Amino acid sequence: MISEKMKPLVNNNSAIRAMFEEGNKLRAKYGAENVYDFSLGNPNVPAPEEVKEAIIDLVTKEDPVVLHGYMSNAGFEDVRQAIAESLNRRFGTNFAAKNLIMTVGAASGLNVILKTILNPGEEVIVFAPYFLEYGSYVRNYDGKLVEVSPDTSTFQPNLEELEQKITANTRAVIVNTPHNPTGVVYSEETIKKLAAILEAKQKEFGSVIYLISDEPYRELAYDGVEVPYLTKYYDNTVVGYSYSKSLSLPGERIGYLVIPDEVDGSEEVIAAASIANRVSGSVNAPSLIQKVIARCVDCQVNLEYYDRNRTTLYEGLKNVGLECIKPQGAFYLFVKSPVPDEKEFVAAAKKYNILMVPGSSFACPGYVRLAYCVSYECIQNSLPAFAKLMEEFK
Amino acid sequence: MISEKMKPLVNNNSAIRAMFEEGNKLRAKYGAENVYDFSLGNPNVPAPEEVKEAIIDLVTKEDPVVLHGYMSNAGFEDVRQAIAESLNRRFGTNFAAKNLIMTVGAASGLNVILKTILNPGEEVIVFAPYFLEYGSYVRNYDGKLVEVSPDTSTFQPNLEELEQKITANTRAVIVNTPHNPTGVVYSEETIKKLAAILEAKQKEFGSVIYLISDEPYRELAYDGVEVPYLTKYYDNTVVGYSYSKSLSLPGERIGYLVIPDEVDGSEEVIAAASIANRVSGSVNAPSLIQKVIARCVDCQVNLEYYDRNRTTLYEGLKNVGLECIKPQGAFYLFVKSPVPDEKEFVAAAKKYNILMVPGSSFACPGYVRLAYCVSYECIQNSLPAFAKLMEEFK
Repeated sequence: MISEKMKPLVNNNSAIRAMFEEGNKLRAKYGAENVYDFSLGNPNVPAPEEVKEAIIDLVTKEDPVVLHGYMSNAGFEDVRQAIAESLNRRFGTNFAAKNLIMTVGAASGLNVILKTILNPGEEVIVFAPYFLEYGSYVRNYDGKLVEVSPDTSTFQPNLEELEQKITANTRAVIVNTPHNPTGVVYSEETIKKLAAILEAKQKEFGSVIYLISDEPYRELAYDGVEVPYLTKYYDNTVVGYSYSKSLSLPGERIGYLVIPDEVDGSEEVIAAASIANRVSGSVNAPSLIQKVIARCVDCQVNLEYYDRNRTTLYEGLKNVGLECIKPQGAFYLFVKSPVPDEKEFVAAAKKYNILMVPGSSFACPGYVRLAYCVSYECIQNSLPAFAKLMEEFK
Repeated sequence: MISEKMKPLVNNNSAIRAMFEEGNKLRAKYGAENVYDFSLGNPNVPAPEEVKEAIIDLVTKEDPVVLHGYMSNAGFEDVRQAIAESLNRRFGTNFAAKNLIMTVGAASGLNVILKTILNPGEEVIVFAPYFLEYGSYVRNYDGKLVEVSPDTSTFQPNLEELEQKITANTRAVIVNTPHNPTGVVYSEETIKKLAAILEAKQKEFGSVIYLISDEPYRELAYDGVEVPYLTKYYDNTVVGYSYSKSLSLPGERIGYLVIPDEVDGSEEVIAAASIANRVSGSVNAPSLIQKVIARCVDCQVNLEYYDRNRTTLYEGLKNVGLECIKPQGAFYLFVKSPVPDEKEFVAAAKKYNILMVPGSSFACPGYVRLAYCVSYECIQNSLPAFAKLMEEFK
């Protein structure tokens, strides 16, 4: 009944669903507070109060025909202008409203830019570990996903392998920093090297290689670490952003693409991306929430909450003998499994009501991902359970 | 710089843009109140007051982590349940929450179901005149759009031609009632005949042919006309709905798909459509507005406003000698051009500051579309201008 292309997706989804249902079973049996569910990257810190105030003020004062109405497919001009100014202020960029396209979250933004640039058979390179959904996005447009293997010593991208894997057929490279699932922030040094490789390869092949920066975690950075703004290092950079994490609005589906003037043929790319936004079915990003963003452009969620979770869980796991890079961003820990097959570790953890995602789900077996966007109590209470779990692996 | 598939879309878009900019030029020169712009299907009647009240109540009382958070890709269960119950009450259907998938408007809903069912090269049949964007949606999945020519005597679908055009390769037929651009409502007799043809052809070819009912105008029906609910007449019917018109929320991108149990392999189709919703980048329909819908499920905009516009414009145009079927739904009049080339008529109208869309933009030359979702004053003031225009064509 369904298309050939959807069949593998449906089969694969059953596995995720099974995991989710197992969590529900555990919660039903032991009570939600006794299950340590680190499997979901769903923000648990509420949206800032300013979001609520903006919504009430907008629906009270603005003309509903405008507030809930159609606008340009790229989004309200004033909203794009406000975001451009905020970016310019914070990162020393030089964007105008026309460089931004409001999208239905970052997932839609990535789809829009891939639809805009990708021809069937062209290659998109990603660095393992990576969000497996990138593969679905690339295959939506009949592109080919090419994986670069992980550098598990630092989880910075493996640039030597990247260099080898770029071909005349490479259309884009996707990076994600701060990074899901490792929490690593790519250093300025890494970005500069990456940019130099892409420049050289563009020359070698006479091609355009887009650097797509998927950065929903940009604002979730700790210890004062700087997250370099990629458009400043490489001209053919397109940024995909989302407010899902920075404002805890994942369900609202609000984000944007930045297509700078420096992108080759930027005018055509911007025009095509606006149309791709429309014909893909989004038409435009949700209107009320667009206007909310313009008012909350410099707000953010309570980062200290995540930071305390990060430190407590990291230290706690280290104390029971687990190994992990201390993350500088996002809300994940990527922990080395004490046994080579991390699925065995994930299965054992369930006995102690601990839920984690195997690294295989990010093309990086031998590791597990813990999302620490949970209550602080959950983290505290989980530590004795981890201690017991690790007894099994001594 | 852009993909081969996007190139024709960008070229075609320039024409629409040119038309839009010409309207802006006229408004700048003569003042907005002296330009009679019937070109845009953008609701001018505000959303019902209940929408505003629901938004304020929700953000005041509900937990923001839930209200703005992720939910199942198909949407909040309680929202889908509320809509299913409303449909069951009003149309005697028998839907459960599981039969509904909340989507980013009807455009996204159509894309989701086409992605779910369509293999490259398979055919989707539409009845001219039709919304040309259907072609883009079908080509998104490498399907082939097949047009049935218009029956200009009634603008009911030409079923004889449909019968000839269905092949073993036909995967779906899209209908849109109440209809854009004619305002016609397909009669129960038409629907029954259509269903019988599809049943017979499914048997003949041993295939599944989906009837996709695109019905954003369902609630915009006048004179007490009944709009038959298509799932009751043909098992393999999928409904795509939007609140853009019924609640004047086009910018919010909120709608749903209904996939009834009667659809062949409905469970698999529902599962695949939820995943298609996710991987296409929508992930889910916007969360706050989903919750608003649950509270406003039986509300609607002020239909009397549109109805008065409809009658006044229809009578006014008849009085100056123009011919047109009196529409029973939506907010469009599809008027016969007094000259065979309707673009000549559209161009002449501009001299009187009247903006209309040529029927060619709906695969039906010789006609023009007037959207009467404008102020009543605009309609009243336009009538003398139409009288002058028609002097030219006597």
